[in-house]
Amino acid sequence: MRQERAIRTRQSVVVAAASVFDEVGYEAATISEILKRSGVTKGALYFHFPSKEALAQAVLAGQFEAVPPVPPQDIKLQEWVDEGLLLGHMLKSDPMVRGSVRLTVDQGSPKDSLDRRVPMQAWMDYNQETLGKAKAAGEVLPHLDVVAVSKLIVGAFTGVQVLSKIMTEHRDMTDRVSDYYRHLLPSIAVPGILVQIDFTAERAERVYDEAMKLRREAEEQAAAAVG
Amino acid sequence: MRQERAIRTRQSVVVAAASVFDEVGYEAATISEILKRSGVTKGALYFHFPSKEALAQAVLAGQFEAVPPVPPQDIKLQEWVDEGLLLGHMLKSDPMVRGSVRLTVDQGSPKDSLDRRVPMQAWMDYNQETLGKAKAAGEVLPHLDVVAVSKLIVGAFTGVQVLSKIMTEHRDMTDRVSDYYRHLLPSIAVPGILVQIDFTAERAERVYDEAMKLRREAEEQAAAAVG
Repeated sequence: MRQERAIRTRQSVVVAAASVFDEVGYEAATISEILKRSGVTKGALYFHFPSKEALAQAVLAGQFEAVPPVPPQDIKLQEWVDEGLLLGHMLKSDPMVRGSVRLTVDQGSPKDSLDRRVPMQAWMDYNQETLGKAKAAGEVLPHLDVVAVSKLIVGAFTGVQVLSKIMTEHRDMTDRVSDYYRHLLPSIAVPGILVQIDFTAERAERVYDEAMKLRREAEEQAAAAVG
Repeated sequence: MRQERAIRTRQSVVVAAASVFDEVGYEAATISEILKRSGVTKGALYFHFPSKEALAQAVLAGQFEAVPPVPPQDIKLQEWVDEGLLLGHMLKSDPMVRGSVRLTVDQGSPKDSLDRRVPMQAWMDYNQETLGKAKAAGEVLPHLDVVAVSKLIVGAFTGVQVLSKIMTEHRDMTDRVSDYYRHLLPSIAVPGILVQIDFTAERAERVYDEAMKLRREAEEQAAAAVG
């Protein structure tokens, strides 16, 4: 149980740090503000994270896992679209996703040695894997360059969120994500699959509710197994 | 001629500021470093810009005009693609473009009141206008939502450059821009036009050389007219 408590403490520090990074960015963030929000002791914080940089790197490393797996679908490309809609929805309110994405996109000073490639590589790997499965299932156009498209998808999504943040504070985020799939999928999916995919903005909230429910259930099962 | 000198002084300050913002970001940039690089006197700098914020806002306002017009083409969508290839090329080395784009993308602190919507709106307006002309010329698909696509294009481009910067320090930028057009244009152009558009990465440097030559010629003509 001690280990479980340590994991919980560590996680509350990471989420508190993410929320501070979201609000003020890496440079202006302070350990004392993170400490205040996390509700843990100074000793506990420094036991897990010796520096602000270590905290930021943990937030970057947690970006991909902060987004729960989406509910399985018959069409692999629908799961793929759902993951993007879910991420778009979470950018509106989830502190871990928001803080981590901000750390990734802000260029920072040459002095900070944050490795922003970590979350980007995780997203590109996820896209390659999922598009690879969709390709094996015959859902994507035969000539599709899965590596190039994974880079495009991760890059384009990143910028769609930057613009949505600047122009509307993320209010139009799921509409923009929907538009992005609407215009990219004809170059990716075979026609018979394309017409079956739902990429409406309204779907985002439904996917979010279902994904969070699945994650809670998985956590409860894991806790029951340990208990 | 005094006015001309004032314009030149102002411009060298703006470019010096952009290069500092490019390297260290808004927060860490100092007026003294900008002063050193611009080679103008302190009095001259403060005559034009009362604060670092005023300098940053001028850099943001100059982003769109830092990219010269591309050579005219029979196909309007080719000009549109050329503008993107040109911007991608300039992100590799032009201090004004790099510094201004960094200021736009970095979220900054809630304390700074930089208006990052200025360059984004200029790019969206440019895209709407150019796509509107392409539509009038029958080059784009009849159902195309020019406003939505302009948002998508500006957002996606922004992120493609963020990812290219993070993963390769912009070395693969023109390849990524080429991939981005390759996968978006089938949702935008009518097939007969699509097959005529050149969006290879190699085109970027050629467009850059021609656009810079056109700009120099225009400047020389303007100078001769004044003289």
